[in-house]
Amino acid sequence: MRIGLDVMGGDFAPDSIIEGAVDSLKHLSANEKLVLIGDESSILRKLGEMEIEPSLFEIVHTSQVIEMADHPAKAFSQKKDSSIAVGYGMLKNGNLDGFCSAGNTGAMLVGASYTVNMIPGVLRPALVTVLPCVDDRDFVILDVGLNPDCKPDVFLQYGILGSIYAKHVLGKDNPTVGLLNIGEEETKGTPAVKAAYELMKEYPGLNFVGNIEGNALFRETMTDVIVCDGFVGNVIIKMGEAFHHLYKSRNLKDAYFDRLDWENIGGTPIVGINANVVIGHGISKRKAIMNMVLQTRGVVHANLAQKIKEAI
Amino acid sequence: MRIGLDVMGGDFAPDSIIEGAVDSLKHLSANEKLVLIGDESSILRKLGEMEIEPSLFEIVHTSQVIEMADHPAKAFSQKKDSSIAVGYGMLKNGNLDGFCSAGNTGAMLVGASYTVNMIPGVLRPALVTVLPCVDDRDFVILDVGLNPDCKPDVFLQYGILGSIYAKHVLGKDNPTVGLLNIGEEETKGTPAVKAAYELMKEYPGLNFVGNIEGNALFRETMTDVIVCDGFVGNVIIKMGEAFHHLYKSRNLKDAYFDRLDWENIGGTPIVGINANVVIGHGISKRKAIMNMVLQTRGVVHANLAQKIKEAI
Repeated sequence: MRIGLDVMGGDFAPDSIIEGAVDSLKHLSANEKLVLIGDESSILRKLGEMEIEPSLFEIVHTSQVIEMADHPAKAFSQKKDSSIAVGYGMLKNGNLDGFCSAGNTGAMLVGASYTVNMIPGVLRPALVTVLPCVDDRDFVILDVGLNPDCKPDVFLQYGILGSIYAKHVLGKDNPTVGLLNIGEEETKGTPAVKAAYELMKEYPGLNFVGNIEGNALFRETMTDVIVCDGFVGNVIIKMGEAFHHLYKSRNLKDAYFDRLDWENIGGTPIVGINANVVIGHGISKRKAIMNMVLQTRGVVHANLAQKIKEAI
Repeated sequence: MRIGLDVMGGDFAPDSIIEGAVDSLKHLSANEKLVLIGDESSILRKLGEMEIEPSLFEIVHTSQVIEMADHPAKAFSQKKDSSIAVGYGMLKNGNLDGFCSAGNTGAMLVGASYTVNMIPGVLRPALVTVLPCVDDRDFVILDVGLNPDCKPDVFLQYGILGSIYAKHVLGKDNPTVGLLNIGEEETKGTPAVKAAYELMKEYPGLNFVGNIEGNALFRETMTDVIVCDGFVGNVIIKMGEAFHHLYKSRNLKDAYFDRLDWENIGGTPIVGINANVVIGHGISKRKAIMNMVLQTRGVVHANLAQKIKEAI
């Protein structure tokens, strides 16, 4: 297995990215190779400072950088020797099994659609986040930002994609799927959500348990998968970040709230494209980068993109 | 000032409602009269058990009850001697200055539109919640459930309504207004939210500070007012409830997280109608009912409906 890591992407690139890469090494097995994509002299300089043998990694030199503020499509097209463009090229050619970056999210999405493309039959890709419940289960939430306005058939397909993720990446048998809504009754919500309810209820093989309200999130009552549009999903994960921040700022100590730290959660896989790609938070440092790499490994290990191809 | 309280509405009616009414007495001044609307014998029985002098209240007997599971419009039309219908009748006739209930939310909304009506010029009424920031300020969020799909002009008007609330009920000068979105940039979000940004930016007198992301919620960076559609707003307040529940269940102790208890927050005023009406959580007990009554007093004291009429 070969995992590509964009060393140039993120607010703390390249140093924090390389530190996270080094930390992830001890979790990777001999046949799992981490490919550092970025400016070779920076990589060698940093590894030297850390007294880490460069041969533990594969290094692919790139000469350009897509900055966080760059226009995504323009930067992706024009900076052909950037770490993001090179990473996607390697993914496409089969030189990588997975690719992750904490860089320009827009460019990562552009790269996905320009290079590896959507899986045929997928209506809209989604960003997936895995969050911890208080009872030590994890749950899958999608979409968390790609598609702010969803149509009913997209909601249904997110239920299917989320189930595949929960089954193959998290190892859940017959995962339960809920539809985020503002009431338990079928008649609640926007027209699109109401229509999605009808589609999901009837869909064979989907373990749909109905509407889930915001007060079930993170609790014992949570489903394994929760489906929502990318607007609401984005607000949910960021509000979780806000609460974690408040928890820390109040000097509270609790094992569960510690797990809510986004740095422990890693990145956000894009599901529905022909490759295993994970996007990290731009402010990722050492720990978050390590978890992003390990999450990418999990997605590759589950053969997620292939599993979706077979199911859709 | 006369505040009507629906004694028959809510999962723990009438006993918990009456207990909350009794607790609120010590916060009301001599010219603030609490009118208990419901079955007189139940009210007298409960007040007797509590050894409370019934003359501290005004009691308006009603013979019918709109149950939590009743069809809102049908129940409101058919049960003319229910506490909700009688309360709205009194509001309309000027016999009450404000009315609150933890009963059937749908029937409360139907009552608002059948009886007191919207203020001319208001596009859609909203449910408002006031929540605490970690820096001891309160912020106003609307809509939290009435209008799951908002058009741009409705978002703009929610900004205006929220500002009036923050100014007159919370006493904030020139309150800051944010638009909940999934990124800070103007170009983020759904088409409706993007268009709302343009309208809000240009609107004279609105102290609009731009897009606010989910990770600003509850924090020092929070605006005084935040505008969102009723779907997202509902998820936010319920997710806040979920976090408070987790905080309690983990036996954490913190003054700020204690304030997030919805029982301290009271009810949810309907803004945009020709009367001061507050809706409580169906599971409200003693403390939540007391806070709902006091919040209704605050809304009446601010003369909210009249202030909106003058501004719209």
